[in-house]
This record gives sequence, C-alpha cells and structure tokens, in this order.
Amino acid sequence: MTVDLNADAGESFGPWKLGHDEELFGLLTSVNLACGFHAGDPLTLRQAIRLAQYRGVAVGAHPGYPDRVGFGRRHLEASPEEVYADTLYQIGALAAFLRVEGLPLHHLKPHGALYNRAARDAEIARAIAQAVRDYDPTTPLVGMGGSALETEGRALGLRVVLEAFPERGYTAQGLLAPRGMPGAVIQDPAEAARRAVQMVLEGWIETVDGHEVALRAETLCIHGDHPNAPQIARHIRAALEAEGITCQTF
Amino acid sequence: MTVDLNADAGESFGPWKLGHDEELFGLLTSVNLACGFHAGDPLTLRQAIRLAQYRGVAVGAHPGYPDRVGFGRRHLEASPEEVYADTLYQIGALAAFLRVEGLPLHHLKPHGALYNRAARDAEIARAIAQAVRDYDPTTPLVGMGGSALETEGRALGLRVVLEAFPERGYTAQGLLAPRGMPGAVIQDPAEAARRAVQMVLEGWIETVDGHEVALRAETLCIHGDHPNAPQIARHIRAALEAEGITCQTF
Amino acid sequence: MTVDLNADAGESFGPWKLGHDEELFGLLTSVNLACGFHAGDPLTLRQAIRLAQYRGVAVGAHPGYPDRVGFGRRHLEASPEEVYADTLYQIGALAAFLRVEGLPLHHLKPHGALYNRAARDAEIARAIAQAVRDYDPTTPLVGMGGSALETEGRALGLRVVLEAFPERGYTAQGLLAPRGMPGAVIQDPAEAARRAVQMVLEGWIETVDGHEVALRAETLCIHGDHPNAPQIARHIRAALEAEGITCQTF
Amino acid sequence: MTVDLNADAGESFGPWKLGHDEELFGLLTSVNLACGFHAGDPLTLRQAIRLAQYRGVAVGAHPGYPDRVGFGRRHLEASPEEVYADTLYQIGALAAFLRVEGLPLHHLKPHGALYNRAARDAEIARAIAQAVRDYDPTTPLVGMGGSALETEGRALGLRVVLEAFPERGYTAQGLLAPRGMPGAVIQDPAEAARRAVQMVLEGWIETVDGHEVALRAETLCIHGDHPNAPQIARHIRAALEAEGITCQTF
Repeated sequence: MTVDLNADAGESFGPWKLGHDEELFGLLTSVNLACGFHAGDPLTLRQAIRLAQYRGVAVGAHPGYPDRVGFGRRHLEASPEEVYADTLYQIGALAAFLRVEGLPLHHLKPHGALYNRAARDAEIARAIAQAVRDYDPTTPLVGMGGSALETEGRALGLRVVLEAFPERGYTAQGLLAPRGMPGAVIQDPAEAARRAVQMVLEGWIETVDGHEVALRAETLCIHGDHPNAPQIARHIRAALEAEGITCQTF
Repeated sequence: MTVDLNADAGESFGPWKLGHDEELFGLLTSVNLACGFHAGDPLTLRQAIRLAQYRGVAVGAHPGYPDRVGFGRRHLEASPEEVYADTLYQIGALAAFLRVEGLPLHHLKPHGALYNRAARDAEIARAIAQAVRDYDPTTPLVGMGGSALETEGRALGLRVVLEAFPERGYTAQGLLAPRGMPGAVIQDPAEAARRAVQMVLEGWIETVDGHEVALRAETLCIHGDHPNAPQIARHIRAALEAEGITCQTF
Repeated sequence: MTVDLNADAGESFGPWKLGHDEELFGLLTSVNLACGFHAGDPLTLRQAIRLAQYRGVAVGAHPGYPDRVGFGRRHLEASPEEVYADTLYQIGALAAFLRVEGLPLHHLKPHGALYNRAARDAEIARAIAQAVRDYDPTTPLVGMGGSALETEGRALGLRVVLEAFPERGYTAQGLLAPRGMPGAVIQDPAEAARRAVQMVLEGWIETVDGHEVALRAETLCIHGDHPNAPQIARHIRAALEAEGITCQTF
Repeated sequence: MTVDLNADAGESFGPWKLGHDEELFGLLTSVNLACGFHAGDPLTLRQAIRLAQYRGVAVGAHPGYPDRVGFGRRHLEASPEEVYADTLYQIGALAAFLRVEGLPLHHLKPHGALYNRAARDAEIARAIAQAVRDYDPTTPLVGMGGSALETEGRALGLRVVLEAFPERGYTAQGLLAPRGMPGAVIQDPAEAARRAVQMVLEGWIETVDGHEVALRAETLCIHGDHPNAPQIARHIRAALEAEGITCQTF
C-alpha cells in the first residue's frame, strides 16, 4: 500500500519568505511549486527546484490566478481562454527550470481559488486539463475525487490522481468545509495523522456534521504555509509508515 | 545572398494594443515575441504565435526586464543571477506556447535596456547566454556585432546572429546613436531601404558624424512599434529583393 | 434643465495608449480617471489631470480592482475590507495630483466589475461609500439608480448622482443588458443621442425586450474607449443642447 | 538634547510578512511606511498607520521604485518626471489613510535604491523634493548630510532632517560602506548603541578604514527588517536615554 505526500511550495516572493521548504521537502514525496502568478518568482523557482532535486522529491506545477496580493485565493472570473493561456504559461515557465536541472514535470495541481473553481466549473476544469494535455498528455492532474477537474481530466485522457486533506474537515458532500466553520481545520498533529491513515487504509472520513463520507486518497496534502507544517508532516508520515503504508509518489 | 528581417512583436498587454503584428508578419522572416515581463501576456503570446505560424515567420524569445510600466526600456540593476532566472522563465513561458503549436524556439534576442546592457556588460551577457545554453544550446542569440553578447555567446558555444538597424543612426564605434541625437532615427522609408541594402551588400554604413563604420548584417531589425512600420518594412523588403537579396531567416 | 456628461479616462498605461482623452475632454463636463489599479499610472494621471484642468472638466476618481491584465473587468472576490482599502488608496493617489494642480476631487465612480458588484452587493457598496465618506463626506458617488451603491451611499449621508447609459440597452429591471445580447450596445450615434435626450427629458427608456423602464439621468456616461467615442459625444451633446438642456456638471 | 529614532515599516505585502512592526513601533519615534510600490499594500498601510497611531509614533512616507520583486533595492533609471510622479502618487496614497485616521504626514524619506540615487543625483533629488513641496511645503525630507537630497531640498525651501545609521559602517566620505565590505554592518547591539550615542553627542564616527568622519544625526535609522531589530532598538534607545538624550521626533 502506498500514498503520495504533497505540499504547495516555492511560495516566497522577492524578499518575502513563506513556508518551510527546507524542513518540509525531506518529509514529502511531491511538491507543487508556485509558478510566479500568485506567488513565486524566477529565483525562488530555481532554488525550490534545486532543493527538490537534492531531496529527491517530485515537482509538479501549481498554477494560480494572476493575483499576487490576494495570493490567488480570491475567486476571479477569468474566462476559460484566459485560464488555458495562464496555465500553459505557468507550466512552461516551471518546465524550463526543470529541464535545466534534468527533472521531469511530474504533475499539475491548480492553486487556491483556481483549484476550488476547477472542482465545480466544468469549463474551467477543461481549460486546465486541455493546457496540460496540449503540453504533455502524460502529465497527471491532481484534484479532489468527484471534482469537475477529475471528470474533465479523464474525459481528455489524462491520469487524475485523487487528493485528500487530513488537516481539513469535510462536508457530507465530500467537499472541504469552509475555513471558519467549526472543525474545518484540524490543528492537532496526532489527529491529522490518524485521519491520514484512515483515509488511505479505509477510504472514508468523519464529516464536520458527524456523518461519514467515502473518499480515495492517492495523495495527501499538507498545508506548507501552516506554522507547524513540518511537525504535522512528521506525524503523518510516521503514522502512515507505522501502518505499513509506503510513502512514495505516483 | 540572404538576410533575415526581424521585428519585436507580441507587445500588446491585456486591453492595450501595440504594434502592427497583423500587417507586419507577412513582411518579415522572424519575430521576437515579448514574453510577459516588459510586455505581452499569455493570451497575447498565444495569438502572436498563431499568427506567426499562419504567416510562416520564425519565432524567437524577446525577454525583458520585469518593468512593464517602463516597457523594459529603463536600465535596471538586476544581478546576473536575476537576469539568468528571468531569462529562463521567459524562454519557458514562450516555449510552452510554441510546443503546443508544434513550432520550434528559433532564437533569442533580449529587449530594450536588457539588450543594451548585454551589449556592454559581460556578466549580464553571460547570464543570458548561459540561460539559452542551459535550455537549448542549438538556439541562436541575436545581437550586435562587437557586443558583449556576441563575445559571451560564442564563448559558450552558441551561434550568434549579427543584427543591424537600417532605421537607426550609428556612431563611429558601431553603436546606435542615442535617440535624440540628430540622425539617430531614420524617418524616410526610402533612406532606410537604401541603408538596408548597403548594410547587407557592402557591410558598412555612414555614421551620424560623417564617418563610415563596418558592420555585418545577418538580420535587419524593423521597429515594429513605429507608426508606419509596415510601410518601412515594405520598402526595405522590396529594395532588398530588387537587389537580388533573398529575405529568409537564419 | 441640466445634465452632466461623463466618460472614463486616463486609461493609458506606460507605453500603451487607450481612449480619446484629447478629443473627448472638450465635449464632456466630467471625467472619471483611472487611478493605477486597473489602468493608469502616475505619469498618465498627471497628464490627464492637466488636460482636464485645461479643458475645464471636473475630475472624479475611478477606482478599480487590482487586475491590470483584465482591465478591472473581471469579477474578483475581494473582501469589503480589501475594497475599502483599495478604494481609499486610489482616492489618495488621485487626490495628490489634484491638489498639486489646485483642483478638487469632484466625485467617485467605481470601475468595471467593481461598479457592477457595487450595484448589487450591499457590503461592497458600503465599503466604497465608507471610504469616500471617511476621506471626504462632501464627495458625491456616481452610480445607477436602484443600485446598492445608491442605497448604501445615501445611508452614509453621501450625495449619489444617478447615471444613465445612452449607448447601452436596458433590461426591464433597469439594469444594463449584458454585452452580447442583441440591442445591448447602441452603435448609431444618432440613436444614442435620441436616447440621451429622452432619458434626460422624459425619464424612461425602451428596454431590449420591448418594454419601458423609468430611470433618472443626472449624468450620462459616454464609453471613452469606443472607437468613435468623440463622434458619439458630439452627437449626444448637440442633441441635448438642441433641446435646451444645459450640459454642466453636478 | 533630543534625537529621533526611525525605521522603515509597513513592508509586508499581501500574505507575506516582513519586519517587526508590532515590537518595534513602541521603541521608535517615527516610522517610514512603504507606500505600495516596492512593498506595502492598501490593507498593510491601513494596519501600519493604526498601529502607529496606537503607539504614538509619527508617520512618514517611504516611496520607492515600482520594483516589488527587487524590493526597490535595485537601481532603476527612471526619469526625473517618472520619479516626481511616482513620489507624488505614493505620498497621496499614504496621506489618504493618514487623513482617515486624523494623522498628519510627518515627513518623507525615499527608499532603498531611490534613497541612494537621491543622495548623489541632483535631478532625482530635485524631483523628489519638488513632489514634496508641491504637495505640502511644510513636510520635512529625511536624508543624509551632504547628500544631493539635502542640497536640493533646502534649495526648494524644505526642511531637511539629517539621518545617521548607527548599525552601518561609514567611509571617509561620510557615505555608507557598501554591504559586503568588512565593517559595513554592525551586528553587535551594544556597539550599535555606543555609536548611536557618539553620533548624537559628539557628531562624528570612526570609518571602516580607521579614520573619523563628522556627521550630524537628527534622526537615527534602525533597520526594521534585521532579524533582531527590536533588540538593537532597545539597546540604542536605552543607551541614548542613559546619556540624557531624549528620544522624540522632529
């Protein structure tokens, strides 16, 4: 039994540092690197890719909306054409740094508000999937099970790797509970670790309103910008390995 | 006898249009496309590449400083590491759109203040050349004869294609006369065409102070943002062809 | 009988020109100047304000979303706090140039997607109105009759000047018909002029679906970025004056 | 005997935090707030001004180049007209937030590469001073003694408050030793405090090459982005007060 452990990374910008790339990369099996739109810049990208290479962690593209001050977390009514072009642009920028270091583009996972929109808006999901397919049809997408991104990605012949969030509460629909709702964010590393194991081994999780929801967890997301992200990652990884689950990328 | 005819293009941004891409592309043999830093955006890039493909004109990268409001024309004291990373980022972004359309990356020519700095600053020239070599050592650089870019590009094993400017006045050192100096800008299409022919056939040009300077013109640059750029391009192309010079890219 | 004639202006950016400020300003009684977020930059602002002063046209702030590539026309889920702060920032930037030229801040009208959102979202409308009231409670807002901006502006004690669009089709709800719907954009200058007069004199307009809707037109908006905006403005102004309506600002 | 203690602040941007505003403001007598070009954003500005008001510290404008990824620390060949307009824009943006909180604009100090250029380039110094004078001729400039900013500011009738840097090494010309030169940065808080006292009381400092240079210190700058800036500020303030020097703003 195996699972991938991913986190968003490369999210610094110019003089501003964000995240725990140095501590986290050794605990993960894949990273999603910001590509310069919502976060990241050319020097940050280069440094994050070198760190990923040194740590042996797989590198995926993490394209976002062109909204740096909002960190790509605000819904933006970009058109499918704009999303297609923005995604392709960001893939290419990342891929140039990967190529120089001799690394492949491992996967693509949209960021923030674009991830959320791609989960429910078929046109936007298709625009992202089309950009990936046009660039390289062997590159997997990462998204939530049941999302429009899963449907549209598969319809275009892409592999879609299903993602679960051990630190986040779920609704009965299998969606993430909005931040702010009680139980939406799991602070306790031990509880996050317990949920991670259950997601992988048993394929279901308790919802914030006391029900159960089935999910498939091929990759688990750690929030890299959380203040104690490294601690949570250590707990999750240790708990998975204690149950005989191998952490390796897809 | 052959020569390439190039122009900067893809220089619109969002709602703002610049240049004469539609009229010009049919008159040129190569274009240098803005990559989103000093001008251009993902949708503009996509459209310019499709137009280039339709017109059969070769596409090169035209990276610039991250100074949109200044259009990349203001000197910026970016470090060699920053220039390397900025160049690689812009190459990659452009290359993704080329790949999707099945086109190769034909060459790279730096833009504006970066072009001027790369002509005289060996470290910056090397940073640009290194980014090109690391990305694809078969991609030629375009630069002025005698420039640091020529020297550093050749030292890294790159092909360097020498560029001349029929619409611009030259100093006795073979440099472009600063805009504002009398004779720095040639307005008359017929005179620009005459200079183009002489540059290609005879390899020298009169300087703004009445001397002569030798130069090699493997590619001639038309200023795409000039109000009557298409007219100038037509004159130059007609004059070259009248002299039996074939306009084709390198 | 009087009416104000306004247009968005100062919408160039760096090397990119947009609009017809030179031709239009003499035909208008007020202008809404982009403040550097969706369009405009410090030099453009300065130049537009000097032109406004020379032409004797009143200057209002035209704040937009921080989305330059999208020209502030894409809905962005900015929070009320962000909209408040973004609005105040843009007011201040504009006001500094006005102060230097000895001009008052005449009014504020939100731009594009922010205008549309402020028409229907009370929280956002209140954020904008609050920024204006905190800055200077004597500054009028410009908005559509029946909009949330009108309601919230009046609730905060601001004067709200009601705007109508002679070049745009209306729905039976008194809203602008979405661009793309038949009749949404009036191309014929004579028809736009006829509608302008009817709006001011009679207070109603035919809707795109053949009904009638009442509206109050204290200011008429000309789309400054329309290719023949000056011609439309001339027709509208001439028609208004032929009916004895004085064009003067509020 | 009195001296002002200042630091650059409000230098966060969107999700990225920088500096120690919370800890530092209580130790300072004035702050220079980033205005959104090299750092800062509308929400950050608002929060920093409220903190300044709460702590009773005077607020000045800290305009910089429009180079966010380079944090305004890279020389940019902006023209005097651009610097004038960029400065005025940033003053206005800050002033709007001050006005809403009932605070005056206390002073202006250029940031980073603009500060350095204004120290030696008379045209640029004059552009900055002119923007301040045009906006409000009672607003003091902060700059180094002997700088072009001092000369041009005084020539335009502005008050110029002279700044010294207790944490930085000086050359025999009274300039800051370039970072990277031995002795250019004083790490030891006690030594920084000793130098602060000597600067204020005695008006001279040892240079990095073992000589002495006279300087006048009306305000002392603490580097707010230094990891232990609060500790250094506490040492300097305590040492000044132990010598009977009152820390109060100009």
